[in-house]
Amino acid sequence: MELRIGLIGLGTVGTGFVKLLLEKHGHIKGRYGLDLRLVGIADLVKGSAYDERGLDLARLLELSEREDSVLAYPGAVEFQQLGSLDLVREDGVDVVVEATPTNLRTGEPGYTHIREALENGKHVVTTNKGPIALRYKELRELAARKGVFLRFEGTVMSGTPCISMGFECLRGAEITRIRGIVNGTTNFILTEMSKGMPYEQALRKAQELGYAEPDPTADVEGWDAVAKVMILANVFLGSQLTVSDVEREGITGLTLEDIRAAEREDAKVKLVADIRREGGHVKASVKPRRVPLSDPLAHVDGVLNALIFSTDTVGDILIMGAGAGPRATGQAILSDLLWIHAYLSGDPKKAPRALFP
Amino acid sequence: MELRIGLIGLGTVGTGFVKLLLEKHGHIKGRYGLDLRLVGIADLVKGSAYDERGLDLARLLELSEREDSVLAYPGAVEFQQLGSLDLVREDGVDVVVEATPTNLRTGEPGYTHIREALENGKHVVTTNKGPIALRYKELRELAARKGVFLRFEGTVMSGTPCISMGFECLRGAEITRIRGIVNGTTNFILTEMSKGMPYEQALRKAQELGYAEPDPTADVEGWDAVAKVMILANVFLGSQLTVSDVEREGITGLTLEDIRAAEREDAKVKLVADIRREGGHVKASVKPRRVPLSDPLAHVDGVLNALIFSTDTVGDILIMGAGAGPRATGQAILSDLLWIHAYLSGDPKKAPRALFP
Repeated sequence: MELRIGLIGLGTVGTGFVKLLLEKHGHIKGRYGLDLRLVGIADLVKGSAYDERGLDLARLLELSEREDSVLAYPGAVEFQQLGSLDLVREDGVDVVVEATPTNLRTGEPGYTHIREALENGKHVVTTNKGPIALRYKELRELAARKGVFLRFEGTVMSGTPCISMGFECLRGAEITRIRGIVNGTTNFILTEMSKGMPYEQALRKAQELGYAEPDPTADVEGWDAVAKVMILANVFLGSQLTVSDVEREGITGLTLEDIRAAEREDAKVKLVADIRREGGHVKASVKPRRVPLSDPLAHVDGVLNALIFSTDTVGDILIMGAGAGPRATGQAILSDLLWIHAYLSGDPKKAPRALFP
Repeated sequence: MELRIGLIGLGTVGTGFVKLLLEKHGHIKGRYGLDLRLVGIADLVKGSAYDERGLDLARLLELSEREDSVLAYPGAVEFQQLGSLDLVREDGVDVVVEATPTNLRTGEPGYTHIREALENGKHVVTTNKGPIALRYKELRELAARKGVFLRFEGTVMSGTPCISMGFECLRGAEITRIRGIVNGTTNFILTEMSKGMPYEQALRKAQELGYAEPDPTADVEGWDAVAKVMILANVFLGSQLTVSDVEREGITGLTLEDIRAAEREDAKVKLVADIRREGGHVKASVKPRRVPLSDPLAHVDGVLNALIFSTDTVGDILIMGAGAGPRATGQAILSDLLWIHAYLSGDPKKAPRALFP
């Protein structure tokens, strides 16, 4: 089988995906019987390119990185001539990879890209948290009506497959609560603080290492974690929360004394995301909490993320792994594309490589 | 969609599955659009029953538990009259659930049940480690040739979905090593020993709680873990190991002094399963090891199990959860049945409930 990909956004995530695709294309063809062909790119800043025979990934990456542009690519054009909405309507595109940045207020531009792609009968893989946090149900229904897939593994814990584990691997179980650490930047800062480094210094270290943005607000005030909590609530607890439904407190008020006070009680301070059913409602929060050392979350250090799914049939299941990074997020996109391939394949006689380990 | 199930073996696992099916049947129909109907049972000791309209699960469970037999069930017959091989050839059966005990020398009777079921075009879900440890490749090829599915989530970590997470959720990644704790009985004993209880006493406690068999050899000498290691090697590292390829050492030689010596080095003693590529070969072992407290496996206590998958794209991913228990293993079977349903469904327009979270 062949899947022809249109990619929107050639920032850190999009570039990470193209790199991984270049590295893995042959392996994927051999192992799974799938030809993943990138036919189009649309990036507001770097420009757009389209070639139905497939773009030359090495050349594209070279231009994108060296000149911060793809306009020197043969046949490339300005974004105004081939915009994201043109790309999602191209007949030659089977699946749209949406990798623009998250906006938790409007969900744009991701929401419009995804809606239009689905409307045009394209499968969608996205790493953009906004549309899934704000409008998952609507997009899910649209995808079902159009007979296409909508996947978003990369929105939570990057390539650590918490979304597909929670849905595909736990079918039949009821998930009653999800609790965990879903922001690597704050967990890195808290880990440094537990080694004795004050908050401001730990934040600077995180910025130097590229874990925190120059403006760290989205991470340290908990907004990134709130977006992930909304996604988990939508997907696994069937509740559409708004941003203000999620109780939120960041880590900027924490001092070394808070960390030490916790340690005196055999606990660590962690920024904990918590989503649970209470009465008929879903309660959700992102808050610094004292986590006793007997709790597995106390041992999730540095930029790692972890989630604990509480179920009615198999108790608590913990998944821990990378929570960010271009290569890990590229893996999330790749696995989503291979999911679509597996579901489309269906018959184990025709596609054994897609359907058997 | 409807899947008609033939169940072989009504021991602890089979009974756990029937109980869960009774509890979940309505939920599964509503949530996933699948009617899971148990039409036949064959148990060497308790007898056999078949009804194409579906067996009465409550009545069956009552008889099975109260009288250790199903012969009082309307229409039930001795196993000799409707044996397991008769059941797997029934036209009215779509999927065979194979839940007989593991034999790591011969793989029987599970191997013959599974082979015959696949030959007859039935999907198979099994919790029996023997056939998957010894003859996975052959069975996988047979399933593919016949156009049916073969699933075995319950063979490792019971309902904690390590098999499907490793295959379905990590597609595209290369798994280079798997390391972990895959036997709950020995982990329980080692956890008790780390609290100061000598081996013999900890073993007795495990037996009293039903975690260890009256003859504990399979667990404490590492054979159960060896079977799981062979399965993981087969499935994820593409290598068919024999039992003697796996370096094996049990926990019977461990003393409290060994545990304390490890603790003096900030480590815990764990029975660690390890499978890795080395040169062109796959090396595998099950051995007690000193695990430093900085290793997440050091914090896996009691009957919990955990596996760490090392990958080339997203680093290490840990999954931790229950490793045994009739309800958890029932969940494994249920999730495998729902996997088959999802793959058979394929089209998100026709089966949105099976394919979207």
